[in-house]
Amino acid sequence: MANVNKVKRKTKDQDRNKDTVGQLISNIVGRDKIVLQGEINPDYTHDESLTAIPVLPLCVVYPKSTSEVQQIMKIANSHHIPVVPRGSGTGLSGACIPLEDGILISFEKMNNILEIDTENHVAVVQPGVTLKQLDDALLKTGLMYPVFPGENSASIGGNIATNAGGMRAVKYGVTRHHVLGLEVVLPTAKTVSTGGKFVKSSSGYSLTQLMVGSEGTLALITKAILKLTPRIAHNATVLAPFDTLKHIASAIPKVLASGIGPAILEYIDSLTMAAITQHAKLDFAIPQQLQDAALAYLVTMLENNDPIRLNEDVEKMCALLLELGAKEVFVLPPKAATKLVEAREKAFWVAKQHKANEIIDVVVPRACIPNYLTTIGEIAQKYATFIAGCGHVGDGNVHLSLFQSDNEKLHDTLKDIFKKSMDMGGAISGEHGIGSEKKPYFLQLEDPHKIDLMRRIKASFDPNWILNPNKLIDQKSPLDAVFSYQELTSTTIVADVRTDQI
Amino acid sequence: MANVNKVKRKTKDQDRNKDTVGQLISNIVGRDKIVLQGEINPDYTHDESLTAIPVLPLCVVYPKSTSEVQQIMKIANSHHIPVVPRGSGTGLSGACIPLEDGILISFEKMNNILEIDTENHVAVVQPGVTLKQLDDALLKTGLMYPVFPGENSASIGGNIATNAGGMRAVKYGVTRHHVLGLEVVLPTAKTVSTGGKFVKSSSGYSLTQLMVGSEGTLALITKAILKLTPRIAHNATVLAPFDTLKHIASAIPKVLASGIGPAILEYIDSLTMAAITQHAKLDFAIPQQLQDAALAYLVTMLENNDPIRLNEDVEKMCALLLELGAKEVFVLPPKAATKLVEAREKAFWVAKQHKANEIIDVVVPRACIPNYLTTIGEIAQKYATFIAGCGHVGDGNVHLSLFQSDNEKLHDTLKDIFKKSMDMGGAISGEHGIGSEKKPYFLQLEDPHKIDLMRRIKASFDPNWILNPNKLIDQKSPLDAVFSYQELTSTTIVADVRTDQI
Repeated sequence: MANVNKVKRKTKDQDRNKDTVGQLISNIVGRDKIVLQGEINPDYTHDESLTAIPVLPLCVVYPKSTSEVQQIMKIANSHHIPVVPRGSGTGLSGACIPLEDGILISFEKMNNILEIDTENHVAVVQPGVTLKQLDDALLKTGLMYPVFPGENSASIGGNIATNAGGMRAVKYGVTRHHVLGLEVVLPTAKTVSTGGKFVKSSSGYSLTQLMVGSEGTLALITKAILKLTPRIAHNATVLAPFDTLKHIASAIPKVLASGIGPAILEYIDSLTMAAITQHAKLDFAIPQQLQDAALAYLVTMLENNDPIRLNEDVEKMCALLLELGAKEVFVLPPKAATKLVEAREKAFWVAKQHKANEIIDVVVPRACIPNYLTTIGEIAQKYATFIAGCGHVGDGNVHLSLFQSDNEKLHDTLKDIFKKSMDMGGAISGEHGIGSEKKPYFLQLEDPHKIDLMRRIKASFDPNWILNPNKLIDQKSPLDAVFSYQELTSTTIVADVRTDQI
Repeated sequence: MANVNKVKRKTKDQDRNKDTVGQLISNIVGRDKIVLQGEINPDYTHDESLTAIPVLPLCVVYPKSTSEVQQIMKIANSHHIPVVPRGSGTGLSGACIPLEDGILISFEKMNNILEIDTENHVAVVQPGVTLKQLDDALLKTGLMYPVFPGENSASIGGNIATNAGGMRAVKYGVTRHHVLGLEVVLPTAKTVSTGGKFVKSSSGYSLTQLMVGSEGTLALITKAILKLTPRIAHNATVLAPFDTLKHIASAIPKVLASGIGPAILEYIDSLTMAAITQHAKLDFAIPQQLQDAALAYLVTMLENNDPIRLNEDVEKMCALLLELGAKEVFVLPPKAATKLVEAREKAFWVAKQHKANEIIDVVVPRACIPNYLTTIGEIAQKYATFIAGCGHVGDGNVHLSLFQSDNEKLHDTLKDIFKKSMDMGGAISGEHGIGSEKKPYFLQLEDPHKIDLMRRIKASFDPNWILNPNKLIDQKSPLDAVFSYQELTSTTIVADVRTDQI
């Protein structure tokens, strides 16, 4: 898929001179906040995707203010230069891979926490603020930003771009549920502010929600208003081995309906469990016989401000899990629990170390997980691809590590896996995004009417198609796109479209 | 504002004949599912807005299937006939007022609950299903759809169109947080399905979230996938009189940070309290002296599956409220509590009975409520408008009843009130929507760049601007809009736009 990033775009030839663009931007941000092609650190040529090919951009710019971002966009838009935004580069789908004829805007220097408002339970941050930075700053307030996608060096801007989720989403929801407002610079260099320090609004289209998960293709986020939530004092973790994942999946609705309200509800298959515990040097003293018989584990974290209530809840949960088919329940000591959750969060790195060829995070309705994984087993066998998994079983978000060194077979495996998730009413990605790497599958498998609608929305924000132009959706050839865009706004063609629709 | 609804639109004159349109639609849905102008029940000419002028449409159609909706849109789009969707007509901003040369689609016959999926905790419903109908169907499952905007005859489709909220939003969130997916018919008669039975997705723009709160201007909702949540067995309600609303507002962050997690957190000013308790024949045996001294009341509802925990929480909450300045706390007997919550929900009807001239629901960051209401007092005095209020104090959503029979003064009062909320970083409406009645204020007070962006999004869905065309945002004159739309997609003009932006 490397060539996807190298597609040449329609540009004004006379302005293609690297030095000219570099000089123009340098005049805005200062020579110290731009790095030109020859001097670029290779880190900026890629994210953490296992399949994307690194690309060296024209330059990397490090703006420090919204005004600088506006002025960069003014130049880019008038000269039709592609712009790719980048947070911490921890993405897994290639969404921040630069274009070789484009500007990479790194938001790492826009990393100020502008306000922590303890009255409204809101934080206002610049996009380059990392999750760790925000969590540290909130520790003393008794509040937290409850989205923990597992990589604390990730930036808030990047999290918003991919609608990051993580393990606690089953209780707290995903990034989407915590972004109350945004300041964004549009591709046309206008700045608009959306939403505000409030949860309720029925005052026009939710531009905030449209922006969340748009992978930097609609606008550049320069400020975010985030909803905070009270930090809960105590937690406890229960590890429960089950015969198979099917048993876990059928237990989940009852666990959720019980009202005990777990903050984490994860399944880990036996292979992944072995790999991550070995990697983290964890030993839960689970008898070997039990380990051999358990094909899947359920990790449940409960939390409460009152330690007595927490203990009661843990007891209730253990009884419930045993009733629902757990072979045993282990209430983990706090340190071991923290290590297990951390090890689960780092599952990606373990898979990478073991030379996984791709990591994905498909979504299916959670009750479909057992059937889905049966099919995954069949697909694995069909292409001789080795697949291990874990996932957010309460959300139907299945994380899979694929080991298949033959590119064609890997592609076929992925296509079958994605197709099956969509056939079951699911989606290609729950939290990683589409980016460049899953785009070919997305464009092929998604309803073309929806892709068309997304293209039209993209064009309504970005008429010159310069913002992260080769990610998520394609413009096709520029000529095609101009044609199809006009076509879609023309009454004549709409009439034709209708006749083939009904 | 009546004339807003009567603006003549560009149409194909030869097709304006009522009989032709009626006949075409009648051929699709059958003569029994269309009512022509002469026979239309006046109920269909208005919603519950206090200011909107009723308008008689060309016809009212009652489709029974998505396919019928598609075919109606096919006719409407090819003949440029405006279409206005209607749920139960319980809206408060005129969003479903018909156009006199348009079709009104009533979704009341598309009122089937298609599925209650207790494994995935999801309900799939047609848009005409009412909140009461859904709640009744869910009673036996132990699950609930937790959005209670106060009017149980409201339809799910209408709730989605306005992003309805209600009292329990402080705990459960608003409609937006419970819509997982939609089936919609676009103005161009295409049908697309968005989202699914899952909470997490990072697979393209969230068309679902864009649709929620779009007041029927982007697409017609024909099916909704709703997230359900466990129903909690027990609840208790605490009524606490305070000296002033300022004392309540400063208590709120501490109440929310306490972790006790109230399901309802409402303020009611003394005037509204007197009116609604009198109307509902409620007597909480609050000593007269205390009633005279209390200018504001806080209503807190707590819930728990465990009655012992509930009692502990109630005790904690009472102690906390007294510590935070409550003059007294009253734990209401269950029946009285239910009646108070119902009376609060019906505050609109009481205001209407008292001949209120307008009812609004502005939003400000919740910590701004005291300052905001001080300003409201000044505005009331300035225009000699009588204003009473109550609201969702945990969400910053302030409901005001305005009594002012002079139209010009009412308009000026509203304008000042809306402007002040936006100056404080708030919004014009939290849950009622903009519709036709708040549109003039919205267009005047909102950032024109955002209005432009919304117009472009609208045009990308609805190139002929036929769907609820005079609500929320305007097309200006068709010629203007065509010009500005092309302008926005043209690189030449974009360059001009940039120069005045930075």
